[in-house]
Amino acid sequence: MKLATLKDGSRDGRLVVVSRDLTQCVPADGIAATLQGALDRWAETAPKLQALSERLNAGEAEGALGFDPVAAMAPLPRAYQWADGSAYVNHVELVRKARGADMPENFWHDPLMYQGVSDRFIGPMDDVECPDEAFGIDFEAEVAVVTDDVAMSTAPDQAGGHIVLVMLVNDVSLRNLIPGELGKGFGFFQAKPASSFSPVAVTPDELGDAWDGAKVNLPLRVWLNDTVFGAPEAGEDMTFDFPRLIAHAARTRHLGAGTIIGSGTVSNLDRSRGSCCIAERRMLESIDAGRPATPFMSFGDRVRIEMTDRAGHSIFGAIDQKIVKWG
Amino acid sequence: MKLATLKDGSRDGRLVVVSRDLTQCVPADGIAATLQGALDRWAETAPKLQALSERLNAGEAEGALGFDPVAAMAPLPRAYQWADGSAYVNHVELVRKARGADMPENFWHDPLMYQGVSDRFIGPMDDVECPDEAFGIDFEAEVAVVTDDVAMSTAPDQAGGHIVLVMLVNDVSLRNLIPGELGKGFGFFQAKPASSFSPVAVTPDELGDAWDGAKVNLPLRVWLNDTVFGAPEAGEDMTFDFPRLIAHAARTRHLGAGTIIGSGTVSNLDRSRGSCCIAERRMLESIDAGRPATPFMSFGDRVRIEMTDRAGHSIFGAIDQKIVKWG
Repeated sequence: MKLATLKDGSRDGRLVVVSRDLTQCVPADGIAATLQGALDRWAETAPKLQALSERLNAGEAEGALGFDPVAAMAPLPRAYQWADGSAYVNHVELVRKARGADMPENFWHDPLMYQGVSDRFIGPMDDVECPDEAFGIDFEAEVAVVTDDVAMSTAPDQAGGHIVLVMLVNDVSLRNLIPGELGKGFGFFQAKPASSFSPVAVTPDELGDAWDGAKVNLPLRVWLNDTVFGAPEAGEDMTFDFPRLIAHAARTRHLGAGTIIGSGTVSNLDRSRGSCCIAERRMLESIDAGRPATPFMSFGDRVRIEMTDRAGHSIFGAIDQKIVKWG
Repeated sequence: MKLATLKDGSRDGRLVVVSRDLTQCVPADGIAATLQGALDRWAETAPKLQALSERLNAGEAEGALGFDPVAAMAPLPRAYQWADGSAYVNHVELVRKARGADMPENFWHDPLMYQGVSDRFIGPMDDVECPDEAFGIDFEAEVAVVTDDVAMSTAPDQAGGHIVLVMLVNDVSLRNLIPGELGKGFGFFQAKPASSFSPVAVTPDELGDAWDGAKVNLPLRVWLNDTVFGAPEAGEDMTFDFPRLIAHAARTRHLGAGTIIGSGTVSNLDRSRGSCCIAERRMLESIDAGRPATPFMSFGDRVRIEMTDRAGHSIFGAIDQKIVKWG
């Protein structure tokens, strides 16, 4: 099934079930008011939402409405935990190569992960507000999963069973703030403002054969101002799959239902597939030509992030948003 | 007024107003079911909660019950944002001195802050679960504030007005995991598991003259296994006050209502006042004697954190908890 959250003036919006073709939706009235509410009681609510989804896809759901992604918030408009990995280690190696630094061997075995801000996510077609272009505004196209409750120290071979939903992310990044923050030693904070999510979150079964229980085997497509920017395969070169990332997050903590775990910027060793962030392209330009050529985003620039099945049908709907000046 | 959340089997518990002397409480029925619910509509709920508080303190509240901190969850059992600063910069300087590193000059002007995990906070008297003593289990006694909605780029001189509640924190830290995590460059993750909070959160007016609009001018008292460990003044040597920390957090993001901002480990230049974490004492021992003497916590060890007014009355109740093995 596919789930979305419609704007209704509240902080958490209104949960709806969306048709497989993304054209119709129906409120989850009587099941759960919000997606977090559904996740809090997932064993009870998931079968009811699934039954409603089947009626909707059969054209038999009462109260069905047209689905407009402009009216969608992030599926979880706010969440209690957003932990973003950096699972495509070749991307990390490239970052370091561009600045002439070797990558420690343990980066291939021990995932990088940071705690992201989750109190006010950006809707899929809402503007990304930023006070200053000089911050170096970039996108990062990623895949993310949502978990149910995961006990502390859950092992990777048990973690996959806790994945209940999959979605796409634009992990907005302010590149020119990163060196200063990382130099202070406490990790990202101001450099990682609110992220955006796809219009719908889907259960893994909606991915069919493209879901192998651990990763999504489809290209993640990115456009910058209507020009294709990249379409790397999300299932290739993912050094740490989602069960590994979940187990990493849960090593010293219980994860509450509704925890979001991100893949980090999708990136392939095959550079002909393009990139999922401007920073990676700039690194490739630096390695090839001695200096970067592609600028970071300006106010008014747009980014579009989408994933289609092998037949070309959009799975999650598109993140499609504009950068605007705040204040 | 003073607010707490009682365990009721749900994830968010039940909001109660607590009497000034911490002996009585009354459910906030008809005002808000949960503290997050109250914070989401604070302009509307705060006056009603205040009126209920006045009736309770006058002995006139119907349905008043005895208040037992064992039955309390964290005031916000889960939150959408927990951002912890490191405002007592002399503590940071000491950390670095112990390992022979100078502190960059900008640490006196630009706050350190990390994004903490907020999906399952620990109740004030609940056990702290940890898989392994070898992780180097430590406490960090801190003061924290809760904000209402704060717009992106709010200036320090405007940020203080967004402080609606104050509480105490035990920012549980796994010291032996920190060097490896900071070495990877992404900041803390596994080294900072769930934090604990005091039984009650209070509005700043409950602090009387001890609240100057920006910090709490009272000692923060810590006991390790019933032995006094430290009582530094929270209002002294706080390089970045709460309005500065809020403005730092809000530089590139809007803060949603219910955002928690922590002070970091309270620490005074006057070392005779003791410490608010074991790591600091170990650093002092290293500087004085060449090596640390105080071990980190073992399973079964207890920590108690409390703040009293100048007359000796507990303001927030006590965090008083035991370390236990998980799994």
